[in-house]
Amino acid sequence: MTIADLATALDELPLIDHHVHGALAAELDRPAMERALTESDRPIPGWMTQFDSQLGVALRRWCAPVLDLPPRVAPEEYLRRRHELGAAEVTRRLLRAAGVAHWLVDTGMGGTELLSPAEMAEISATRADEVVRLESVLEQLGRDDVAAGELPERFAQVLAERSARAVGLKSVVAYRHGFDFDPHRPSRAEVVAAAGRWLRAGGGRVDDPVLLRFLLWSGVDLGLPLQLHAGHGDPDLRLHRCDPLLLTEFVELVEPAPLVLLHCYPFHRNAGHLAQVYPHVFFDVGLAVNHTGARSAAVVAESLELAPFAKVLFSSDACGPAELHHLGAVLWRRGTHRALAEWVQEGVWSEDDAVRIAGMIGAGNARRLYDC
Amino acid sequence: MTIADLATALDELPLIDHHVHGALAAELDRPAMERALTESDRPIPGWMTQFDSQLGVALRRWCAPVLDLPPRVAPEEYLRRRHELGAAEVTRRLLRAAGVAHWLVDTGMGGTELLSPAEMAEISATRADEVVRLESVLEQLGRDDVAAGELPERFAQVLAERSARAVGLKSVVAYRHGFDFDPHRPSRAEVVAAAGRWLRAGGGRVDDPVLLRFLLWSGVDLGLPLQLHAGHGDPDLRLHRCDPLLLTEFVELVEPAPLVLLHCYPFHRNAGHLAQVYPHVFFDVGLAVNHTGARSAAVVAESLELAPFAKVLFSSDACGPAELHHLGAVLWRRGTHRALAEWVQEGVWSEDDAVRIAGMIGAGNARRLYDC
Amino acid sequence: MTIADLATALDELPLIDHHVHGALAAELDRPAMERALTESDRPIPGWMTQFDSQLGVALRRWCAPVLDLPPRVAPEEYLRRRHELGAAEVTRRLLRAAGVAHWLVDTGMGGTELLSPAEMAEISATRADEVVRLESVLEQLGRDDVAAGELPERFAQVLAERSARAVGLKSVVAYRHGFDFDPHRPSRAEVVAAAGRWLRAGGGRVDDPVLLRFLLWSGVDLGLPLQLHAGHGDPDLRLHRCDPLLLTEFVELVEPAPLVLLHCYPFHRNAGHLAQVYPHVFFDVGLAVNHTGARSAAVVAESLELAPFAKVLFSSDACGPAELHHLGAVLWRRGTHRALAEWVQEGVWSEDDAVRIAGMIGAGNARRLYDC
Repeated sequence: MTIADLATALDELPLIDHHVHGALAAELDRPAMERALTESDRPIPGWMTQFDSQLGVALRRWCAPVLDLPPRVAPEEYLRRRHELGAAEVTRRLLRAAGVAHWLVDTGMGGTELLSPAEMAEISATRADEVVRLESVLEQLGRDDVAAGELPERFAQVLAERSARAVGLKSVVAYRHGFDFDPHRPSRAEVVAAAGRWLRAGGGRVDDPVLLRFLLWSGVDLGLPLQLHAGHGDPDLRLHRCDPLLLTEFVELVEPAPLVLLHCYPFHRNAGHLAQVYPHVFFDVGLAVNHTGARSAAVVAESLELAPFAKVLFSSDACGPAELHHLGAVLWRRGTHRALAEWVQEGVWSEDDAVRIAGMIGAGNARRLYDC
Repeated sequence: MTIADLATALDELPLIDHHVHGALAAELDRPAMERALTESDRPIPGWMTQFDSQLGVALRRWCAPVLDLPPRVAPEEYLRRRHELGAAEVTRRLLRAAGVAHWLVDTGMGGTELLSPAEMAEISATRADEVVRLESVLEQLGRDDVAAGELPERFAQVLAERSARAVGLKSVVAYRHGFDFDPHRPSRAEVVAAAGRWLRAGGGRVDDPVLLRFLLWSGVDLGLPLQLHAGHGDPDLRLHRCDPLLLTEFVELVEPAPLVLLHCYPFHRNAGHLAQVYPHVFFDVGLAVNHTGARSAAVVAESLELAPFAKVLFSSDACGPAELHHLGAVLWRRGTHRALAEWVQEGVWSEDDAVRIAGMIGAGNARRLYDC
Repeated sequence: MTIADLATALDELPLIDHHVHGALAAELDRPAMERALTESDRPIPGWMTQFDSQLGVALRRWCAPVLDLPPRVAPEEYLRRRHELGAAEVTRRLLRAAGVAHWLVDTGMGGTELLSPAEMAEISATRADEVVRLESVLEQLGRDDVAAGELPERFAQVLAERSARAVGLKSVVAYRHGFDFDPHRPSRAEVVAAAGRWLRAGGGRVDDPVLLRFLLWSGVDLGLPLQLHAGHGDPDLRLHRCDPLLLTEFVELVEPAPLVLLHCYPFHRNAGHLAQVYPHVFFDVGLAVNHTGARSAAVVAESLELAPFAKVLFSSDACGPAELHHLGAVLWRRGTHRALAEWVQEGVWSEDDAVRIAGMIGAGNARRLYDC
């Protein structure tokens, strides 16, 4: 086996994208595409373009050929061709060329514009399953005329129903509060009181720490792997309060319920520590891989330090334009190849090990964890 | 265009050093030079030399040829030649060879020994403008017999006068307190009370958090870009209290007033997050580039991850011996070339993009931001 | 001198492993070996193996040839051969092949299974000295019928006796509390009161912050270099409370007593800051070098940024199977060669400097610091 074989193995590896959102099959104009290239929710200033970013450069490099364009075309040329082919065709091409065999889709974000898991499966001619977002389930329940006093039981029932066919759960407590919360299970009385305050205020966005903790513990009770956004994200979060190390007490209290730390950048080394010392902790560097573009190989390599390789996963965290889904897979394959090929070339790793471990991170670990 | 062209473009790029201090044109003996190679304010122990550091090795490598010496000469040989040429000639050579077209000089540090912006311009045969340090303006006002009750208005007036021809403002709240301050604008009554305490204690060094916040908000009101020291610096600061993420609330409160996070090491990835999600946040890795020497290419590469390239700037943060001004430019050019050339060689970036984006970071972004 | 000479110099450099634990000369079965490859204290799940980690891969690569096996053999083959040779022979081979000239052994961990400094010296045919763990000395005193009122003086006396021939002291306050403690010297009355509470509760594990501070200050008083575990370790610690920056006030209060920050990962850049600005602060990246295996070259390189090279040390932090002692030395030599050789090849460093500075980090700095 030569290192070319490692490259081939990585190129052909059918991935499980264990944390992703639906693709956006609608047409996109340039402002909408620019907004999709950043976690910022602010208008993009007129004196700059998001195409001048690692993600923007990567998009032009790797997605252009899928649209029959030469690599590194100008943004306007890319968008012209995108429009010419039509969003549906572009989405179909980009998703299929990603080589993802199974999408685990967080359905908690976006309205009807984003493809459902079933639609993702159909357009990409592969499999898709659902990851249920805890906060969304509660917010829906809040719209359904629930009384505070019955909320704990009603929520447990609704969550069980909603996730009957799901493969995992997701929490955005990082956005709604940060990880510096009281890690203990709240009492029923505390939950009812907090639910009363929330419902009297009209329900809506859940950011009460008691309710957020109730959601987390409800997820733990259900027994599905619990994904937690960690690290970089939009300005709704305070990054220094999203360091996964702040979860350490919670991690210990819920052991052995499986916890999956998502993204983690720039705290991915901290996540590696948790994944080494706690058998039930897993992590990925999704989202960061896309946003760091040409630098993603460095981020992938940094994710391969402390954690045993059975604890590291692949995800894109793509949401919206299918370019993001495509890039997640391309950049992970390239970054992983670069790290492992270097170690094989140095004679430190065997190529057999490299191929096997790449397969674990790209698919096998997720298959076991989510039983999918 | 070949990659050699990228190297040429970087070598010849006229830089804007958007945060620098005056050069020291006086003669330097070895102890003084050693002290200039560290942020430590402690005497250098007899059992070590600061030349055995990344900065010391870089100085011998890159500055020696400017003094007609072979690269990597011994420190004593370097200093002998420096003395032979005379400090004025050495300063002239090193500043001119830096290829900096415009120095934005923080005048808040050092006495009469450091060159003024006008002197910097003259000796380097290029342009220089001033960045006014907020704390220095207040400390001067404190020496001018101001009453606490009139301080807010008097300060606003003096600051406007002092910065009439300045291109930016600078705060050292990182040193004087850390970033864990109440981010809100203090009331006039709070400022007057704090000013009274400060003046009754004899004025001098400002470290009262209310006065420091008053300075920051005064800077915001004035409308010039506001530079903030962040990250590594001398032992006057507590590094863990200088993580720019601790400024997040302040960043949101002052939006859209332009904020420039200086240095940031080892929190430069955190700065990249802020620069991505907030349109008015900019940053650089000045100071760290000098102090990490042969490792500065890695630091520069890490600064090119999350932030759109319109938000990243070049500075040296040099202060004192012109070797530091020279090295800031040399090491930034080399580090940037190394990162971009690798991406061009991999076929990920086009060379046109690499040259264009290097020009943005090295000069264009600063030109727009400071309107200079 | 060619770069091959740098490689030879590094290969042949007699190291001082300034922080290590005794080797385990007993036979090991596979579960015991797997447990030795992680800082986790949890049972290793049946669906994974610790051999699929950077440390596991490194072990197969670098230790197998010492046992006459080809590199990268399967774990079961390695363990079969290990058993065939016998643990004593394996330990002898691995320790001698490490090329360590002097072991500074922390004797505070492990029972009689781990080799004593004298046994380490004998089996490896080299020198060994002791580093005395402060908490262990107090815990022993607690078993010896001491009264709270006499504890401060008795401890000082016992510590002086126990460390009469030691070269350094060690604190595990990172594990027992974290670095967020009151940095001031506790009063005698506080110590006596805390000792009373501790003794009435039966003595045993010391985690009272007053007693931990008393130990630290007792160590400072004694004048030997004081080692502090920092960063990554087993789940007994909370990693975010083990960032060495949290020690800054303590560092200033005890100046100039020499402090040695051990491991530090992932906060090694923070340690570099402290080592630059405080003359009495030293650090290493031991433990992390082993656990990051093929990535250890990156960690070593990151440790060579801010700190003057006179302040950086080599250690393995190995504990138990002699594979860990061997890998610590092999990976440090390789990582250091890779960083320095790159800088020599670039023409930035001279090879003479590279050889000289490698010798400082690998042995010379420790020799001076510990006067050994």
